[in-house]
Amino acid sequence: MNWTTDNQKNLMLFSGRAHPELAEAVAKELGVEVTPQTARDFANGEIFVRFEDSVRGSDAFVLQSHPAPLNTWLMEQLIMIDALKRGSAKRITAILPFYPYARQDKKHRGREPISARLVADLLKTAGADRIITVDLHTDQIQGFFDGPVDHMHAQGQLAEYVRTKYGTDNVTVVSPDSGRVRVAEKWADSFNGAPLAFIHKTRDPLVPNQVKSNRVVGDVEGRLCVLIDDMIDTGGTIAGAVRVLKDAGAGDVIIATTHGVFSHPAAERLASCGAREVIATDTLPITPDKQFETLTVLSIAPLLAQTIQQVFENGSVTSLFDGHA
Amino acid sequence: MNWTTDNQKNLMLFSGRAHPELAEAVAKELGVEVTPQTARDFANGEIFVRFEDSVRGSDAFVLQSHPAPLNTWLMEQLIMIDALKRGSAKRITAILPFYPYARQDKKHRGREPISARLVADLLKTAGADRIITVDLHTDQIQGFFDGPVDHMHAQGQLAEYVRTKYGTDNVTVVSPDSGRVRVAEKWADSFNGAPLAFIHKTRDPLVPNQVKSNRVVGDVEGRLCVLIDDMIDTGGTIAGAVRVLKDAGAGDVIIATTHGVFSHPAAERLASCGAREVIATDTLPITPDKQFETLTVLSIAPLLAQTIQQVFENGSVTSLFDGHA
Amino acid sequence: MNWTTDNQKNLMLFSGRAHPELAEAVAKELGVEVTPQTARDFANGEIFVRFEDSVRGSDAFVLQSHPAPLNTWLMEQLIMIDALKRGSAKRITAILPFYPYARQDKKHRGREPISARLVADLLKTAGADRIITVDLHTDQIQGFFDGPVDHMHAQGQLAEYVRTKYGTDNVTVVSPDSGRVRVAEKWADSFNGAPLAFIHKTRDPLVPNQVKSNRVVGDVEGRLCVLIDDMIDTGGTIAGAVRVLKDAGAGDVIIATTHGVFSHPAAERLASCGAREVIATDTLPITPDKQFETLTVLSIAPLLAQTIQQVFENGSVTSLFDGHA
Amino acid sequence: MNWTTDNQKNLMLFSGRAHPELAEAVAKELGVEVTPQTARDFANGEIFVRFEDSVRGSDAFVLQSHPAPLNTWLMEQLIMIDALKRGSAKRITAILPFYPYARQDKKHRGREPISARLVADLLKTAGADRIITVDLHTDQIQGFFDGPVDHMHAQGQLAEYVRTKYGTDNVTVVSPDSGRVRVAEKWADSFNGAPLAFIHKTRDPLVPNQVKSNRVVGDVEGRLCVLIDDMIDTGGTIAGAVRVLKDAGAGDVIIATTHGVFSHPAAERLASCGAREVIATDTLPITPDKQFETLTVLSIAPLLAQTIQQVFENGSVTSLFDGHA
Amino acid sequence: MNWTTDNQKNLMLFSGRAHPELAEAVAKELGVEVTPQTARDFANGEIFVRFEDSVRGSDAFVLQSHPAPLNTWLMEQLIMIDALKRGSAKRITAILPFYPYARQDKKHRGREPISARLVADLLKTAGADRIITVDLHTDQIQGFFDGPVDHMHAQGQLAEYVRTKYGTDNVTVVSPDSGRVRVAEKWADSFNGAPLAFIHKTRDPLVPNQVKSNRVVGDVEGRLCVLIDDMIDTGGTIAGAVRVLKDAGAGDVIIATTHGVFSHPAAERLASCGAREVIATDTLPITPDKQFETLTVLSIAPLLAQTIQQVFENGSVTSLFDGHA
Amino acid sequence: MNWTTDNQKNLMLFSGRAHPELAEAVAKELGVEVTPQTARDFANGEIFVRFEDSVRGSDAFVLQSHPAPLNTWLMEQLIMIDALKRGSAKRITAILPFYPYARQDKKHRGREPISARLVADLLKTAGADRIITVDLHTDQIQGFFDGPVDHMHAQGQLAEYVRTKYGTDNVTVVSPDSGRVRVAEKWADSFNGAPLAFIHKTRDPLVPNQVKSNRVVGDVEGRLCVLIDDMIDTGGTIAGAVRVLKDAGAGDVIIATTHGVFSHPAAERLASCGAREVIATDTLPITPDKQFETLTVLSIAPLLAQTIQQVFENGSVTSLFDGHA
Repeated sequence: MNWTTDNQKNLMLFSGRAHPELAEAVAKELGVEVTPQTARDFANGEIFVRFEDSVRGSDAFVLQSHPAPLNTWLMEQLIMIDALKRGSAKRITAILPFYPYARQDKKHRGREPISARLVADLLKTAGADRIITVDLHTDQIQGFFDGPVDHMHAQGQLAEYVRTKYGTDNVTVVSPDSGRVRVAEKWADSFNGAPLAFIHKTRDPLVPNQVKSNRVVGDVEGRLCVLIDDMIDTGGTIAGAVRVLKDAGAGDVIIATTHGVFSHPAAERLASCGAREVIATDTLPITPDKQFETLTVLSIAPLLAQTIQQVFENGSVTSLFDGHA
Repeated sequence: MNWTTDNQKNLMLFSGRAHPELAEAVAKELGVEVTPQTARDFANGEIFVRFEDSVRGSDAFVLQSHPAPLNTWLMEQLIMIDALKRGSAKRITAILPFYPYARQDKKHRGREPISARLVADLLKTAGADRIITVDLHTDQIQGFFDGPVDHMHAQGQLAEYVRTKYGTDNVTVVSPDSGRVRVAEKWADSFNGAPLAFIHKTRDPLVPNQVKSNRVVGDVEGRLCVLIDDMIDTGGTIAGAVRVLKDAGAGDVIIATTHGVFSHPAAERLASCGAREVIATDTLPITPDKQFETLTVLSIAPLLAQTIQQVFENGSVTSLFDGHA
Repeated sequence: MNWTTDNQKNLMLFSGRAHPELAEAVAKELGVEVTPQTARDFANGEIFVRFEDSVRGSDAFVLQSHPAPLNTWLMEQLIMIDALKRGSAKRITAILPFYPYARQDKKHRGREPISARLVADLLKTAGADRIITVDLHTDQIQGFFDGPVDHMHAQGQLAEYVRTKYGTDNVTVVSPDSGRVRVAEKWADSFNGAPLAFIHKTRDPLVPNQVKSNRVVGDVEGRLCVLIDDMIDTGGTIAGAVRVLKDAGAGDVIIATTHGVFSHPAAERLASCGAREVIATDTLPITPDKQFETLTVLSIAPLLAQTIQQVFENGSVTSLFDGHA
Repeated sequence: MNWTTDNQKNLMLFSGRAHPELAEAVAKELGVEVTPQTARDFANGEIFVRFEDSVRGSDAFVLQSHPAPLNTWLMEQLIMIDALKRGSAKRITAILPFYPYARQDKKHRGREPISARLVADLLKTAGADRIITVDLHTDQIQGFFDGPVDHMHAQGQLAEYVRTKYGTDNVTVVSPDSGRVRVAEKWADSFNGAPLAFIHKTRDPLVPNQVKSNRVVGDVEGRLCVLIDDMIDTGGTIAGAVRVLKDAGAGDVIIATTHGVFSHPAAERLASCGAREVIATDTLPITPDKQFETLTVLSIAPLLAQTIQQVFENGSVTSLFDGHA
Repeated sequence: MNWTTDNQKNLMLFSGRAHPELAEAVAKELGVEVTPQTARDFANGEIFVRFEDSVRGSDAFVLQSHPAPLNTWLMEQLIMIDALKRGSAKRITAILPFYPYARQDKKHRGREPISARLVADLLKTAGADRIITVDLHTDQIQGFFDGPVDHMHAQGQLAEYVRTKYGTDNVTVVSPDSGRVRVAEKWADSFNGAPLAFIHKTRDPLVPNQVKSNRVVGDVEGRLCVLIDDMIDTGGTIAGAVRVLKDAGAGDVIIATTHGVFSHPAAERLASCGAREVIATDTLPITPDKQFETLTVLSIAPLLAQTIQQVFENGSVTSLFDGHA
Repeated sequence: MNWTTDNQKNLMLFSGRAHPELAEAVAKELGVEVTPQTARDFANGEIFVRFEDSVRGSDAFVLQSHPAPLNTWLMEQLIMIDALKRGSAKRITAILPFYPYARQDKKHRGREPISARLVADLLKTAGADRIITVDLHTDQIQGFFDGPVDHMHAQGQLAEYVRTKYGTDNVTVVSPDSGRVRVAEKWADSFNGAPLAFIHKTRDPLVPNQVKSNRVVGDVEGRLCVLIDDMIDTGGTIAGAVRVLKDAGAGDVIIATTHGVFSHPAAERLASCGAREVIATDTLPITPDKQFETLTVLSIAPLLAQTIQQVFENGSVTSLFDGHA
C-alpha cells in the first residue's frame, strides 16, 4: 500500500488581542471564524497563547493591530507566530495593518537604531513567511523583510470618499511636511491633477530638531485643502498645519489619514484645529476616547479580506489597489 | 606609510530604563560610568534610543532588568542592541539578570509557543553575541542561545546569609513543588547535607491545571524549613506552601528566592503567610509597593560586576560561583 | 497549453541500520514499505547511503535508533537526510525514538558542551524540517530545535501495563533522584494520586560528583514501589535505588523506563537487583545480550506509526498521548 | 612557553578597476598604498582577482565605483570580497561611493524586484562586514544591510562651494520632483532658511509612467535657483527642470548633484540646458566624454579617507558630516 | 464556512535576455509559453525586470544562459529570482545551462576567490531553491549549492552523434589536459572501451603558469581522435592539442564539447586547426560570428525540457542521462 | 575611570583522542602544551569533553585525526568545538589533517549524499571559523566550507624524500586511475618534467562500478615508477596498479601517499605487492598493525606547526608549500 494524498491547504485566521473587532470584521468578510485561542497575561506581563484547534498544515494569517501598548502587541504577535511554527503551520502570514516603528526607518544621526528593520527581522526569526501591511510610512520598508510583502493602500478608499463628498474642482492637496510631497502628488493625480502644496519647516542646522518657522509653499488661498498624512499620532503637527493653512488664506481643510493613532491629546487637537472633517481608517482601534464629532472612520476590513483571499488562492493583489502590489 | 594599530578594546556599560539603580550599582562596583543616552517613548509606545558617545569598537554590556511591563523592557533592550550593532560596537553582551519568559521553556501541550527560545533568538537577531544571566528557571535555557551564556547563581550569596543568621543544624530544605527538588538538593548540600522535603501536588489527569491536594513529602516536623524558589511572582504558591508546612508541624519557615517579581498581591501574601523572613535579590526592582517588613533584599550588583570584569578580561567566571560557569 | 497539477504528496519511510526491526514494525502498522536503499561502510568507517527509489517531492520520514555505536548511527541519519535534501524530498522528518546526547542538555560547569543542542543544530543543518521523538530526558530539549518537534510519551502505555497487572492501591511512585520527581508526580496522577518518594543523594560541595549517602524521602514501607526513569544505561543508579528502597522496607519494586539502553552490565545488575519486573520499550534495540528473565518489552511502533500518520495527514497528535503534543 | 601576542590590526586598501584614480586619491590622503593585485577578464567576461600581498588579519577596505558596465564592477567587488574572506582578512568594509541599484528601493507595482536590497544581501553573502557609502538615493537603504553602514554626505562640500561662490541671499532651493523635497529642505536650512520650490509632475493614474505636465510649486521668479539631486543619469529630468524654471521666470540656475552618472547624452543636455554651472563629485569617474564647460567636479576622496581613518581607529564619523553617521 | 483548497501548482517558465531562442525552444518542447516580462537596461547599466502575469504560487523555472557579458546576465538572473521571491512564487528553480565561473572552483594559490561557490551562494541569497545545470566543469560544484542540483549531461547526445557518424572501431578518446582524463574515460566506456590518451603539459615549478612542452601520452598514431572538453573558450588549448595530436601521427581529429563559449578568435582557430568536425551544444548562444563550416550544433533544449518536466512532476531525472542525477 | 585593555590573543592547542601523538608532536614544534581536558565515553557511546583551563578569548586550534571509527572522532571534534564556542573562545580553527568523507564530494548518481559538504557544514554549525587540512581528495572541497580554508600539501615533503633517495633521472610518475592524473602532473613537474602514465580502467556502462580491464597508458617500461595517491585505504587499487605496472615491464615501483588509512588488509597487500617502498605521512595514526617492512612514515607535524604559527601571527602560509595557500 502506498500513502498518497492531495496536498490540500486550509485558511486559518488568528487574531491578537489588540483589536479583535477588526479581526472579526475581516473574518465576516471572508466567511470564516477567527480560530479560538487562549491568550492571557501573567502577573509580570508575560503573555501566553495557545490555539484551541490543530493548526497543522494550515495557511495561517495572524492579524494583529499595534496601538499602545505597542510593544506588548508586537510581542504577542511574535509569540503567536512561534506557536504556529512549532505547531506545524504550513505557511505563516503576519498581517500588520499599521506597521510598528515605521518612523524609525533610517539613522538620522549616529548610534541610532533602525527599528523598522529590527521589527522585520524579529517577525522573520519568529517564523513569519510573509507580511501583509497597509500604507507603510515609507515604501522602502518593504525591502526590510526578507520575503514577500503585500503592501496595500487605503488611499483609493479615502480619496473616493473625498471625491464623492466634496468634488475635486477646488481641491489643493497639501503635504504637512517636505517628506510627504510624493504621496501628496499621487493624491493630486487621483484628483485629476489638482494643485499641490506643502509646509516648509526651516531649522537652524546648529540646533537639531527645532523648527524655526513654517511656511506654505504652493497656492492654497481660497482652496479646499486636503491635508494628507500616513498617520496622525498626537496630532500636533497636523493641527499646526491646519493653522498655517488657514493663516495663508485656505478655505476648508479636510484631513485624510490611513492610521489614526490618535494618542492623547489628538482628539482634542483635531476637534478644535479648524479642520472641517478628519477621515481615517480602522487599521488601529479608534476607541471612544479617541473619537470626536468631525471624525469619519472607514473600515479597512474589506481590503484586508480581499488581500487574504488573493494570497490564499494565489491570485493577484495588484488589481485591488491601482497597481501597487 | 603603513597603518597598524594595537587593537584595544574598551568596556562600555549601557542601561535600559527598567532598573537604572542596578546599573548604577554595577557601574560603581566596576568604577565606570553608565554610557549616557537619550531614551524616550513616543506617544503610541514606540521606544527611541540614541547613545551620546561613540560606541565604535567597544566591548558593550547592555544591562536591562525585566519587571512589568516586561515586553516594553525587552523591546527596549533589543532596540539598544540594534543601535550598538549599527553603531559598530565590537562585541555585544546582553545582561538579563532575570530572563524573561523563562517559565515558557517547553510545550506542555500542542500549539503552544516556547517563548524562552523565542527570546534567545530575538536577542541573537538584534545582534547580541553573548548573554549574562542569573538563575534561569531551568538550566537548559542556556542551550536556547546560539552563543556563550554566562549563567551565574545567587544561591551562594543567599545560602551564606541563611547559614550565618540561622545556622544549619535544624534546617530542612523544602522545594515548593516537584520540579525544584534538584535545586533544593544543591541547597541541602551547601547546608552539610541537610534533609529535603517537597510539596506533592496531586492532579486529576482529566482536569488540567487543577490541583486536588498538597502533601508534604519528607520530614519537616519541628524543623527550620528553608523554602526555596527561583522566582516568586504573585506569591500564591509559596504562601500556600508555608501553610502546608505549618500544618505539617514545621517550625520557623524562611523563604529564599533569587527573583522577587512580587506582582500584586505578593507583598500582602508574603507578609501574612507566616514566614519568618523572605530573602530575595534585586535582579528585579523591588519598588516600595513590593516591600514588607519581613523582606530582606541582597544586592546582585557585585556578582554582575565581577562577571563583566572577567568577561572583559577573558578571565574565568567559574571561580565566582562554586564552579557553575 | 498550461501545466497545472495537483500538488500531491506521498509518504516515504526510510530506516537507518541501527534498529531495522523497529522500522519494519512501524511500516507494517502503516501499511507501507521501508524504502529500499544501499547503505554500507567503507573500510575506514565512512558511511555511504543511496536510495533505490526516487524521493522527489516525498514527505520523508527518516527513522533511526541510537544505540551504541551512537555516533555512527547519528552520522548515518545526517547523511540520509543530506541525500534526501539533495534528492528533492519535499519535507524531511527525522524520527529519533531515543534522542542522543539528551543528558548533555546544559553546562554543569564552565567549558562544557551542550551536546543536545548541537545534535538539534546538526539535524537542522543536514536538512531536517521537523523532529519526532519520545520521552526526552528533559522537555526543554524541544526548544533546542528550530522547528516543529512532536514529543511523544510512552508513559501512558507503560502506566497502563502496570495498572492492569498490579493495580494501584498500594503503589508508591519513586523517582531515583531529585531531578525526576516532576515526572514521578505525573505517574502518581495517573495512579489516582498515589504517594511519591525519591532518593536524596547528599554530596560534599567541595568534592564534585561524589555521592556521600542515599536516603529515601517519602513513605515506602510495605508499599509496591514503581521506580521510574526515562532511560537506564548501565543500571547502576537504578539498581542502587532498588537496594535503598528495600533497605527502607519497601515491598515489591517494579522498574519502568522508556529507553532501555542497557549497556553492559545493565542486564546482570537489573536481573539481580531485587526488582520484581523491569518494563521498557523498544525505542532502542533490546538485543539478546541485554535481555533477562524479569524484563518486559513493550513496542513503541504503534505510537510512532500513529504519529507519522497524523503528521502526514495534518491531523492533531495531541489526542495520542494525553494532551502532550 | 606560552604564545600570546598583541592583537594588532593593519589597514589595507583595495581597489576595483572601475575608478582607480579615486582609490589612488584616497590612498594618498591616507598615506597608504593601494594593495597590488592581479585582476583580469577572461574572454567570456569572467573576472579573476588575486592579491599580491598577504591579507591575513587585515582591516580591509574594498573601494569600488559603479559606473557602466555596472554589473561587472559589482561582481568584481563581490569577488574581491570573497577572496579577502577566504584569505582570512579580519574585517571587510565595502566602500560604494555610488550605491548601485539605489533607485530600485521599493516595489512600485507587483512582481518587481527590490534590487537595492538584493545588492545589500549579495555584499553580505560575499563576506562584507560593513559598508561605507555616500548620499544614498533614499536613507532607508541603510536598513537593507544587516550590519553597520556609514552613510556619508557630500552636501556639506557642495553647499559650501555654492555659498562661497554665489552667496545665499537670493537663493531658492529647488527639488526636481516631489520625492526630493525633504533633501532640498536640508539644503535650504544650510542656506539660512532659503525658500523652497519643486516641480510638480501630474500624471493620469490610468496611464502609468507618463507625465502630463510640469508645474513649479513655490516662488522662483528672479531667484538664483539651486537645483539639487542625488544623481544625474541621462540628464533629461534635470534639463527639463531648468527649462520649467526658466519659463517660470527664474534667474540663474545652478545644478548640484553628488553622483554624476552622466550617461549619454547627459553632457550635451547639461551643457545646453541653460544652467549656469553644474557641480558634481567624483564618486563616479567623470571621463572626458562626460565633461563639458560649465561642469565643476569636487573630489570625494578627502571625505572617504577621513571616514576610513575614523572607522579604522574606532573614532566617530559623526563629526565629519554635520551629525549624520 | 471553511476555506480549503487543493494546493495546485502550475509551471511557469521565465527567460533572461541572454539566449531567448533557447528558452523558446524549451517552451515549445514543453508546450508552454515563456512568461511575458518587461526587461530593460537603465543608461548606467542597471537592469530592471517586471513580470506581466501573476507569479503567486507558481513553480517557477528561470532559464538564463551566460555568454559574455556574463556578469550582466548573472545579475539579471539574480534580479529575476528576487522579483519572483517577492512576488510569492512557491518554488524557484534557476536553470544555468552553462554554470558561470565554473573554472574558479578552487584556490590555486593564496588570496584567490572561489567564485563558483560565490555564484552558488548568490543564487541562494537571491532566492533560488534549486538549480538545473549541464556538464559542470567539475562535478564537485554540485556541492557548492545548499540545495538540490540536477546536474544533467550532454555526453550521451554528443557521443551518440559521434558513434553514429564515425563508428567506434578506430577511436581513441583524448583529453586535452591532465584534468579531463576521468571524463575522457567515461567517453571511452561509451565507445566500448576505446583507448585513452591525453596531453601532458610540463611546467617549471619556479615559473608559474607557463607550459614548457606538450607531449601526447597514450597511443594515437593512425587513430580517429575524439578530443573532448567541457567547454571551449578562445580555442587556444584545444587547437594546440589538435596540432600536437597531428604531430604525433593521429588520423582524423574530432572535437566534442558541451559548452561552445567560442570567444574571439575561437571560430578562426577551430576552423583552421585541422580538426575534421567540431561538435557543440547550444547551452550558450552560437551567434553567426561564432560559426564556421566544420561546426555542428546539437540542441540542448530537449534535455532541459525533459528535466523541467520531471522536476515539476516529481519524477526521476536519473533515467534521462545514464544514471547521473 | 575607563576600562581599556590591549586586545591580546593567546594560542591554545586542543587535541581529540584519535591521534594524541600527532598533537603532542605539533605542540612540541610550537613549544606549547596541549590544553588538558577531560574526555570520556559514556557506556552507550556518547562522548563528554571538558577543558581544564579557561578558554575565554583564546585563539583555539582543535586538532583531530580521523581514522576508524571515523564518525566517533568527527563527533568528538564537533563537541569540542561546541564547548569552545560556549566557553567564549575568540576564534576556532578546526584542524583535520585527513578530511573525512572527502571521497563523497559529488553525486555520482541520483539520491546520493554529498557528505564532504555535509562535514563542512557540520563544522561550521558547531562553531568552527576556519579549517586547516592537508591534501584534500579534490581541491574543490575547499569551496564546501563557508570561510577560510588553509589547504596544505605534503607533496613537497614526499617528493623531496623520493628525489634525495632515488634521483629523478629514470622516474615516471604514475597515477593509479584517470582521476589523479592532474596531481601526478604536478609531481612530474617537481621531478624536472618526468614522464607521466596512468592506469586506464574500462567499464561496461550498463554494469555500474565493475571494472572490465586495466591498461597502462604511457611509457613505463624499465622506468622507476613513482605511483602516487592522496590516500590508500585497503590498498586493493594501489596493489593492483603495481601488478599492472610490473606486467607492463616497469622497473622498481615506489608508492607515495599522504594519507595512510591502511584499513585491513592494506599492510599485507602493500608488503607483498612488489613495491620497493611505500612512503606515507602520519596524518592518520599508523598503528603497529598497519606497519610493514617497506613502509616509511614522514611526520606531518612540522608542516602543521608552521601553519598554525602563521595563522596565529597573521603571516602568509603560501611560502610553506610552493605557493598553494
